[in-house]
Amino acid sequence: MTIAFGNLAFDEPLKRLEIERRQPGPDDVRIDIAYCGVCHSDLHQARGEWAGTLYPCVPGHEIVGRVSAVGGAVTRFKTGDLVGVGCIVDSCRHCYQCDDGLENYCDHMVGTYNGPTPDAPGHTLGGYSQTIVVHEHYVLHIKHDEDQLAAVAPLLCAGITTYSPLRHWNAGPGKKVGIVGIGGLGHMGIKLAHAMGAHVVAFTTSDSKREEAKQLGADEVVVSRNSAEMAAHRQSFDLIVNTVAAPHDLDAFLVLLKRDGTLTLVGAPATPHPSPNVFNLIMKRRSIAGSMIGGIPETQEMLDFCAEHGIVADIEMIRADEVNEAYDRMLKGDVKYRFVIDNSSLS
Amino acid sequence: MTIAFGNLAFDEPLKRLEIERRQPGPDDVRIDIAYCGVCHSDLHQARGEWAGTLYPCVPGHEIVGRVSAVGGAVTRFKTGDLVGVGCIVDSCRHCYQCDDGLENYCDHMVGTYNGPTPDAPGHTLGGYSQTIVVHEHYVLHIKHDEDQLAAVAPLLCAGITTYSPLRHWNAGPGKKVGIVGIGGLGHMGIKLAHAMGAHVVAFTTSDSKREEAKQLGADEVVVSRNSAEMAAHRQSFDLIVNTVAAPHDLDAFLVLLKRDGTLTLVGAPATPHPSPNVFNLIMKRRSIAGSMIGGIPETQEMLDFCAEHGIVADIEMIRADEVNEAYDRMLKGDVKYRFVIDNSSLS
Ligand SMILES: [Zn+2]
Ligand SMILES: [Zn+2]
Ligand SMILES: [Zn+2]
Ligand SMILES: [Zn+2]
Repeated sequence: MTIAFGNLAFDEPLKRLEIERRQPGPDDVRIDIAYCGVCHSDLHQARGEWAGTLYPCVPGHEIVGRVSAVGGAVTRFKTGDLVGVGCIVDSCRHCYQCDDGLENYCDHMVGTYNGPTPDAPGHTLGGYSQTIVVHEHYVLHIKHDEDQLAAVAPLLCAGITTYSPLRHWNAGPGKKVGIVGIGGLGHMGIKLAHAMGAHVVAFTTSDSKREEAKQLGADEVVVSRNSAEMAAHRQSFDLIVNTVAAPHDLDAFLVLLKRDGTLTLVGAPATPHPSPNVFNLIMKRRSIAGSMIGGIPETQEMLDFCAEHGIVADIEMIRADEVNEAYDRMLKGDVKYRFVIDNSSLS
Repeated sequence: MTIAFGNLAFDEPLKRLEIERRQPGPDDVRIDIAYCGVCHSDLHQARGEWAGTLYPCVPGHEIVGRVSAVGGAVTRFKTGDLVGVGCIVDSCRHCYQCDDGLENYCDHMVGTYNGPTPDAPGHTLGGYSQTIVVHEHYVLHIKHDEDQLAAVAPLLCAGITTYSPLRHWNAGPGKKVGIVGIGGLGHMGIKLAHAMGAHVVAFTTSDSKREEAKQLGADEVVVSRNSAEMAAHRQSFDLIVNTVAAPHDLDAFLVLLKRDGTLTLVGAPATPHPSPNVFNLIMKRRSIAGSMIGGIPETQEMLDFCAEHGIVADIEMIRADEVNEAYDRMLKGDVKYRFVIDNSSLS
């Protein structure tokens, strides 16, 4: 029996629950969870804002902790290792996506919560819990110092979700990269793009975020409502990673791209964005793309990159019983930049 | 004085006009035009359906003929050469687009008609005329046999507009490529993608086009209104080049792309497409891109590729005074697949 925090219906708050975890199989790693980040997806799932939430719902896919048991066939982990688990706990492991190390695009990818599993209760339960048992393929090594562990947790979703498109579209020295939105995802995007050596421009709707964006690593900050500021950057970006899921005008960012530039969306809006102007694509061979989290090998690469560059998330630690309040604050943008649950508060 | 065919107002038909061409400057090539293809853009421009049409309007940017004079500094052409001119007759020749041989994306690109020029009447006049004078940089060599010349004309717009994205997104052996729409652009796209060695699937709304699409080189033909046929191709395309400018559902094609696949639009709709579903981009890291004609070096490459592979357009020859009727037929899709004006009919 494991203590968790979750809810039993979309309109109920999260509360203390008792759940079962399977005994580790030969390939499994059991993790005593130390901290779990609080992602916007957690809120959408728990509150039933996405179709198909199964209850009890235990969210959480930014999981860090220590290995407390390993199955007999496990080769890469031993008891006591500092490890992480992100958004993925299973996939088919034989399709071309899995073969390419992009399990995140596998048609049979199993999410860390609300995914299909033979384990009770028939769907996966996430990291708002004391322990989790995961096939070793989906477990990551953490090389940061232990005292940074809580702030490492958000790397497992917010970090990899921005790292993957930055790497895929070649952010680095000589490249001008925009990050739209300075929240949980965006603040990681700024830090990562800066560490990759790109010239980083942060876009925000709020003049008040200028200073903090620069402190995160932005070389420039543009208030996207200021059309003169926007116009000064026309046709200059190689890549813009857009973390804003709320419906908004994509053309304002498309025209800032150079020829062959890409606007990569990492969030999908609940209702459609205004339809982008195809002329803005055609005139400079621009692209609008999407990207979803990242594969397991690149998640390990991202964690190692962050350890090497001293990168962690900026977090506010909470107890598990503060998560309902944290959701409300997230909706108001009142967090810098990620809540992380101290899972010892579950005991 | 040169005889041309054009109109004086958006609501007037095209008719015989007399226009002036400049004397060839040091870098100029004068061309006696033998044939000129009839592109949908010609119709939109002449009828004022795009903002900013200047009159008199002489359309035509699929120009082939023979060099009849060259300026003193011209090195690449001599009198009598078979040559072509496409959509571009000038650009800045020193920006990064021009340096990269992608004059089509130069901010100062001058279209073959309706573009700014110091020549009378202050805007460029296109290929529905007996002669044209063009800076040699924008003139292409034609290596096809002379008896194919009329059918070469459409390569200068329809050919390069499909060739460029096929090359840029690496159509070739082992790649599955879709071509949406079997018209002037699409029929070239099918021929070119086939010659590049790709597995080619043609999409049409019309069951009646199945056989002709196969004869053009399609390995498979899908009627896009048939949802079962469409579903059979889910997640299988590397690239889909979409030649249909009328507003339509892009999601139907997005879901047919593999991970990292690209849907490239080569036409912009007069009113927006329904806004594409961002989930379809994010779930498999897909892209929607645009592409506009092609650069001068790749236009030459395309012409050489076509000469080598025996590729020309399928055309219906008309006299200049049949162009108004041809426009009406084009709007009904009643052409296989391109009208080409025999410019000797202007005399
Ligand atoms: Zn998340
Ligand atoms: Zn798989
Ligand atoms: Zn054209
Ligand atoms: Zn230029």
